[in-house]
Parts: sequence; structure tokens; C-alpha cells
Amino acid sequence: MAEKPSVLRETDDEARKLARVLLRSARHAAVAVLEPGGSGFPFVSRVLTGTDVDGVPVVLVSALSTHTQALCADGRCSLLSGDVGKGDPLAHARLTVQCEAKQVERDTPLHARIRERFLRRHPKAQLYADFPDFSFFRLTPVRASLNGGFGRAYVIDGADLIIHSPAIDELAAMEARAIEHMNSDHADAADRYAQVHCKAKGTGWRICGLDAAGVDLVNGDQSKRLEYDLPLQSQGELRPLLVKLYG
Amino acid sequence: MAEKPSVLRETDDEARKLARVLLRSARHAAVAVLEPGGSGFPFVSRVLTGTDVDGVPVVLVSALSTHTQALCADGRCSLLSGDVGKGDPLAHARLTVQCEAKQVERDTPLHARIRERFLRRHPKAQLYADFPDFSFFRLTPVRASLNGGFGRAYVIDGADLIIHSPAIDELAAMEARAIEHMNSDHADAADRYAQVHCKAKGTGWRICGLDAAGVDLVNGDQSKRLEYDLPLQSQGELRPLLVKLYG
Repeated sequence: MAEKPSVLRETDDEARKLARVLLRSARHAAVAVLEPGGSGFPFVSRVLTGTDVDGVPVVLVSALSTHTQALCADGRCSLLSGDVGKGDPLAHARLTVQCEAKQVERDTPLHARIRERFLRRHPKAQLYADFPDFSFFRLTPVRASLNGGFGRAYVIDGADLIIHSPAIDELAAMEARAIEHMNSDHADAADRYAQVHCKAKGTGWRICGLDAAGVDLVNGDQSKRLEYDLPLQSQGELRPLLVKLYG
Repeated sequence: MAEKPSVLRETDDEARKLARVLLRSARHAAVAVLEPGGSGFPFVSRVLTGTDVDGVPVVLVSALSTHTQALCADGRCSLLSGDVGKGDPLAHARLTVQCEAKQVERDTPLHARIRERFLRRHPKAQLYADFPDFSFFRLTPVRASLNGGFGRAYVIDGADLIIHSPAIDELAAMEARAIEHMNSDHADAADRYAQVHCKAKGTGWRICGLDAAGVDLVNGDQSKRLEYDLPLQSQGELRPLLVKLYG
């Protein structure tokens, strides 16, 4: 939760990185919208989440749902991500991101790209992703509040949750092939990345996303985000970095 | 999520009971509010939740937090409860309750009652519950949307989430003693209630609430709600019902 300046900590790179990891590793989130119909009453529900190649969160929602009708009427929304885990629910880090939502038009390269990335993260969504009432929205971060646990509150700029790199497009163009190569020819890499860099346990991890700022990893119900220290500036930096991270 | 009438199921007693159990067994929830300052932007964060003796959800929040400042400016809010569990996050039942929040005045019998019940559910909250910046809010349900899983959406009346019984006050007056008696003299009852009536596993369960509509059970991070088929109409009905449920 955001708190008064008096109790806010100074936002540093560690806080920004934690915020990015919370947002980009999320499989689902609570989304707050304004109830459609003009009442202005807040409404919160659960949605599946993914990210676009620029780190902007995306959701796949049904036109029959209140949140979708709300987003079509007023794109202002708020996402809460961060798992509760064991112990006190408030002791675990969570991120509130206030966003402007924009529906993704079907039969466009943008839709195809987002759909492909989303379905790699949520394979079961293939069952309904193409239903006529379902659509993707990009939720562009405006500002965010990170709560790293009791008394550890930070304000995060929306821009700090968006990937800025000249390599975004060229990496997007090769993402699917690179992921297939890694998961088939270097199957142990995903486990290594998850265990060594994401404090994950067990094996069976697979890469589901490779963008300019990091690696998305999934394993059944679990998902992790390996966030690079700095975004890649060119496609050519990907391979050596993946080798280096493998160790 | 609420859905159009065309896809809504007819609300039956089973749906109402599931909604009550989701709300009353929750340890935490996502709360959506309107960002303070008049922007009207929705904001969502995580809060600890409990219930008052009439089933109305309560939250313990800090005046330093955005959600508290928001609730003081505009009491309209929305709670999302229901754990995600394993598998597809959208396959698990969750409840959205739109509420009107009202701050609970300190040094009143109402505050003492709510505080006592809340701390039985969240013992660790004793560390900060009495800090001057913390306060309780009652969140009176106005209307709710139950999503029992894919394609199982129901609209729930706010009144169906509030306990209506002439026995509420007399039960509240004896609640603490009855709980102490059950947990000390019939220590196995809580395990039995949790296992037989709430599909809970393991032992170590304790009763933390006894109201006119059911039993609140906690065990470390877990909490369960044993919801009676019908609310008690008199204090005298409690003991025989607890014996009957013990089997």
C-alpha cells in the first residue's frame, strides 16, 4: 500500500527491481475497476495476467464480465500482484499498479504477439482465448505502490515498470525461436535459471518469455521472473547473457 | 466476476452459502477503493479481514495507508476473497463484495467486540492493533458477485451476507467463554468440525469465532468456516447444535 511521505522509503534500484519481478512473475492479479453504469463504485475481481514485450501487463478477459465492461467504459484500473505465501499475509511483498487499459484489436500483429506470449504462460487459456467474447487489454502502468512488507513502502514511477530498449522489436521477432531452442536444446537451463537466480525449487521449469529485460519461467502452477540488472540494448547481447547466467 | 443476466445462474441457497463461506473464512482480501484526492482512480491493496457478530466483514488498517485515507473520504469499496489454490487461478471460487465502509470509533463496546474477535482470528495483529494510527472499519455488504468457477456466476444480495437472528447479541455476550470452553474442554471438537464439515486436513484446529450463523476455525495460516444451514434463533440452540455437528 502507498503511504504518506513520512513513512515512505526512498525508492532505490532494489525496490524498482522487486516491483518489476512482482509484476512480471504474476500469473494472476486482483484488478480494481470502476463499476460500469456510472456509479463510480469500485469493483475488484481476479484476472489472469501476462506481459507484452515492453513489460506492459496484459489481461485476457471476457466481454461478459463486469471488469471488461468497466474497462471499456473507463480504462483506469489498478492491479494487485504478489502471492500471499505462508505466515502473515501482510508480511509478503505486493505491488499495486495503477494503469490505463486499452483493448487490443483482433487480427493485428499486436494481438498476435500478445496472444502468443500469453498462451506460452497460460497454455490452458488456449481453450477460450479465441472465443468471440474474449479479448486482450494492455494495462499501461501510470504509477505504482510497492509494499515490501511491514513498514517498507515505496512509490514507483509507471515508467520504471515499462521496458525501455532499442532491442525490443528485434528480440520480439526472434523470441519464439529462441525459447524453443532453449527449452529443447538446453532443457536444463530453465531449471538452473529458476533455482540459481529466482530461489525456485524443483525441476521441470520451462522458459515462456524472453524480452529485453529478463526471462519468464513457468513450472505448472508456478512462475518466476529472472530480471536482468539492465535491459539488453541489442539482440546480440541475449545469447552471451544467457550463457553467463547459466554459469 | 458478475456477468450479464444471459450467463448468470439463478442464485440458490447453495450459492448463497458458498458466498458466505468464502467471505467468512477469509484471512485477507484485496480491497478496491477510490484513490483519495478526488481523482476517482481505482486503487487496490491487501488487507487482513475478519467479521463482526452479524457477519459484516471488518478490516484493521493504518491511517498511513492509501486505502484507509480513501475509505475515510468515500466509504464505497469492494472486497475480493477466495484463495487461488492449485491449478488454474480462475477455476477457484471467489467472491466480490461491494461494501459501504464505516470507521469503528475507539473506546466503544463495538470497538471492543470487533477487536476481540479480530485478534482471536489474527493473534499477531496484537502487535499493532492498538497503535494510534490503526483502526477498524465495518464493511457493510451492499451487493456481491460470486464466481464459482468458469461459467458459474451469481449475483448475491448484500442482505444475504449479513446474519439475521434475534440471538446475535446474547450469543456475542457468551462467545468468548463458549470458545474458551470448547478449545480447552473439547479440544478435539475443532479438528472434527474442520475435517468433517470443512474438508480440512490435519489437526491443531481451534475455534476463533462462534456467531449465530456458524463457527470460525483457524490453524496456523489456515482458516475455515463451518456455516450452519440456518442461523441460530436463540442462545440455547448453540450447545445441542455443536454436539450434533460433533457427531
